[in-house]
Amino acid sequence: MVQTLQPPAKQPRTERGRKTLRKLLDAATAEFGEKGFHEASISGITRRAGVALGSFYTYFDSKDAIFRALVADMSDSVKRAAREAIDERMTALEIERAALKGFLDFAGEHKEIYRIIDEAEFVDPASYQNHYETIAERILDRLKAGAAQGHFRADPQEAHAWALMGMNVFLGLRYAIWGRENDMSADEVAAAANAMLAHGIAGQE
Amino acid sequence: MVQTLQPPAKQPRTERGRKTLRKLLDAATAEFGEKGFHEASISGITRRAGVALGSFYTYFDSKDAIFRALVADMSDSVKRAAREAIDERMTALEIERAALKGFLDFAGEHKEIYRIIDEAEFVDPASYQNHYETIAERILDRLKAGAAQGHFRADPQEAHAWALMGMNVFLGLRYAIWGRENDMSADEVAAAANAMLAHGIAGQE
Repeated sequence: MVQTLQPPAKQPRTERGRKTLRKLLDAATAEFGEKGFHEASISGITRRAGVALGSFYTYFDSKDAIFRALVADMSDSVKRAAREAIDERMTALEIERAALKGFLDFAGEHKEIYRIIDEAEFVDPASYQNHYETIAERILDRLKAGAAQGHFRADPQEAHAWALMGMNVFLGLRYAIWGRENDMSADEVAAAANAMLAHGIAGQE
Repeated sequence: MVQTLQPPAKQPRTERGRKTLRKLLDAATAEFGEKGFHEASISGITRRAGVALGSFYTYFDSKDAIFRALVADMSDSVKRAAREAIDERMTALEIERAALKGFLDFAGEHKEIYRIIDEAEFVDPASYQNHYETIAERILDRLKAGAAQGHFRADPQEAHAWALMGMNVFLGLRYAIWGRENDMSADEVAAAANAMLAHGIAGQE
């Protein structure tokens, strides 16, 4: 069960406020991504954002609070990246392939995401666990929908969702974060993973 | 390609030295696991180990050095746990199932391993990457051996090894570290993952 977390940021009421909050979160991504939580500072974030220190405290009480908000924001971004890659005419298998491709592209463009999510294990364990529990639930929902349509075997379980999430996270780590010259493209990685997900790797008996 | 790392500890020449080194590494597991790298101290490690501070410096130059040695030691332990679970009469698929079961049991008994390996991403990135690169190479070797015997489809690739490693790491996180009452047993998790690895989750077309 996903834990209930405090809402991470005070919500802006104006368009200008929304822009300031966005600037702060983007600046926090750069600050935490480059320096890590302990070396990062609120003044470093406001300087990068080009906003006054007072504006920071309009939305956040502390460095911990903006870090927690950032993890939630990144969870949302991962969800959106997968969702935007998906088209409702796709089969359940095509959805998984597109979701992985969308995630690999997103992680390649936002390489800080691994460092920030992974640091949450130490800085904010509840957010860290919540991030993965939430994604696993979403994957399990997709697997169940696919099973209901007959695209997947019946009775998908939580373990299948965690296994699939682990595949995707580690393929992202290897190919989006630690990518090397002459690697497979994101398309090829997603295709290889999708074939493995679909039919496994056992030979013909 | 796995990076070349400095040997992490001076090697003891006597049986007594080997025991002292082992005590220091076990104490470091507890100290880093409980406190995290930054709060952990050399004196906390020697106190837990019941050895003199001078003995610490016989083997390690610094807190960083024993942390690096500990990551290498845990990599070895993971390798050994998988290897001891394997029996040479097993088929390639049975080997993967037994290796995962062995890993789940090991992680359940040494829950600090996730925290310590994950903290290496920040404290000692080269060791962190080396840990996973090494495991992926070992998995790829097993997949190739299985393919050569006809148990796996031909032409296993690096992406398959990383996908399989990710499955195992996340199943360990969910079931060995964040386990809950009424969860599947390690045996059942390994069986579900193995069926998925063998035949995938696609329905009959």
